[in-house]
Amino acid sequence: MATSLYNRCLLSELQRECVDVVLVSPRNPLNVGAVARAMANFGFKLLTVVDPYEPHWREARSAVGAPDLLENARETPALADAVRDCSLVVGTGTVTHRKPEQSVVRLDELAPLVTQELDRGGRVAMVFGPEKHGLTRQDLSYCHVLVEIPTDRHQPSMNLGQAAAVCLYELSVRSGRSPEESRPFENSLDNSRERLRAVAGPAPTSNNLDLLAGLIEEVMVFAKYSPKTMQEANRHDLRLILRRLNLNAHDSRRLLGLFRRILRRLQRNSS
Amino acid sequence: MATSLYNRCLLSELQRECVDVVLVSPRNPLNVGAVARAMANFGFKLLTVVDPYEPHWREARSAVGAPDLLENARETPALADAVRDCSLVVGTGTVTHRKPEQSVVRLDELAPLVTQELDRGGRVAMVFGPEKHGLTRQDLSYCHVLVEIPTDRHQPSMNLGQAAAVCLYELSVRSGRSPEESRPFENSLDNSRERLRAVAGPAPTSNNLDLLAGLIEEVMVFAKYSPKTMQEANRHDLRLILRRLNLNAHDSRRLLGLFRRILRRLQRNSS
Repeated sequence: MATSLYNRCLLSELQRECVDVVLVSPRNPLNVGAVARAMANFGFKLLTVVDPYEPHWREARSAVGAPDLLENARETPALADAVRDCSLVVGTGTVTHRKPEQSVVRLDELAPLVTQELDRGGRVAMVFGPEKHGLTRQDLSYCHVLVEIPTDRHQPSMNLGQAAAVCLYELSVRSGRSPEESRPFENSLDNSRERLRAVAGPAPTSNNLDLLAGLIEEVMVFAKYSPKTMQEANRHDLRLILRRLNLNAHDSRRLLGLFRRILRRLQRNSS
Repeated sequence: MATSLYNRCLLSELQRECVDVVLVSPRNPLNVGAVARAMANFGFKLLTVVDPYEPHWREARSAVGAPDLLENARETPALADAVRDCSLVVGTGTVTHRKPEQSVVRLDELAPLVTQELDRGGRVAMVFGPEKHGLTRQDLSYCHVLVEIPTDRHQPSMNLGQAAAVCLYELSVRSGRSPEESRPFENSLDNSRERLRAVAGPAPTSNNLDLLAGLIEEVMVFAKYSPKTMQEANRHDLRLILRRLNLNAHDSRRLLGLFRRILRRLQRNSS
């Protein structure tokens, strides 16, 4: 009986290698170790730790069976660096105390989104915030979607290691595609924009969107559209908008070309 | 968007109250606390700790947001006492290093079994073994089914708190029944014996099966069918068989009556 159940397809090894786990400013190395252990349990490989509180997080003894994973983990100063190669960035957290600025998906509804992204050759990041407060509004502006674990409203806040285990279990078990479900889009969100983008190719990486955002900001400043006092707020909104637009890599290159031309023209006019 | 997703039905509060969590001989109180925290996160209420290694487990500081749950937890000397009122006992673990004596279900296939049992008024126990070795063969003989979390074969062993979080998440999200799925048995295992039992009423509690097993053993001994050297092994097998038979409460009462009669007759004949 056990054997026949195992015939149902899980996320493939290749697909797991295209899912990164990113911890933003974790405080307790034991939690980093617990996340590494859960990653090893569910076959995920690449951990990135952003701006950790404790420099010796690689020595966490809670990483049972996952010392290599901690050894090979990346450390970056900022979230933007950690997710630069990812085309779908999934923030985790609860929306109990705030109104999110992007789409919220319940964890048990996340699989089709991730499957679709992996199918078109994209890279996915699962981003977890610090223990006490979760991801900040700034962190979330790098995320395409916010995933919420459906917890009890009286006690919504999960331990970091347990939250990661639950998310990785869900992806590992339900983002795979069983043989009966092999036709593309049959199980993904029925969204014609999504379909169009999928036909047109992979989504741009986080880094490409950041390049585009930087260029647009330059244009805005040059055109005196963005006064100094508004620059930070405009930058935030621009990040969110670009992630909401469902651009494909081709769109993003074209926009980059257009805004480069605009910027050059503006500079020439002013010289 | 968030709101509409939440309309999908989760396990109801009433149903959660009919699912017990049982920890057998946990060694580290921090793990007991982590399990309590996950229970609070997913709205489960009754924790039973069997023969704990450390007497002060109720003081675990890891039970963030769940001090009442630890305070109200039961402590029992043996697993049989912990599950006596349950009609479906689910053991957890991996089958990597042993051949289980009962059916194995993958965690993502467990929901229909649990839903069916709750629908007919039964009580379900999720049983977790000690950190190092998991449930023993003796523990498992009290379980109707063994559930396996589909972990990587290179690193199958999960942290206790993380394993509990994953199991409770799965039950909480997928054992509920959405309005479209309200017809009985449509989502349960297509097993005619199961259907028959369901029609005939709830399953016997673990304690009723133990009473029946005790009586049958008395008969076997009296009939000199079970020599002293085989008594322990026979007792073990009897427990397993009775849990495999899919008896309903009525069957179990009838068998109890039959074996009582047999025993009395045997005793009278020998006097």
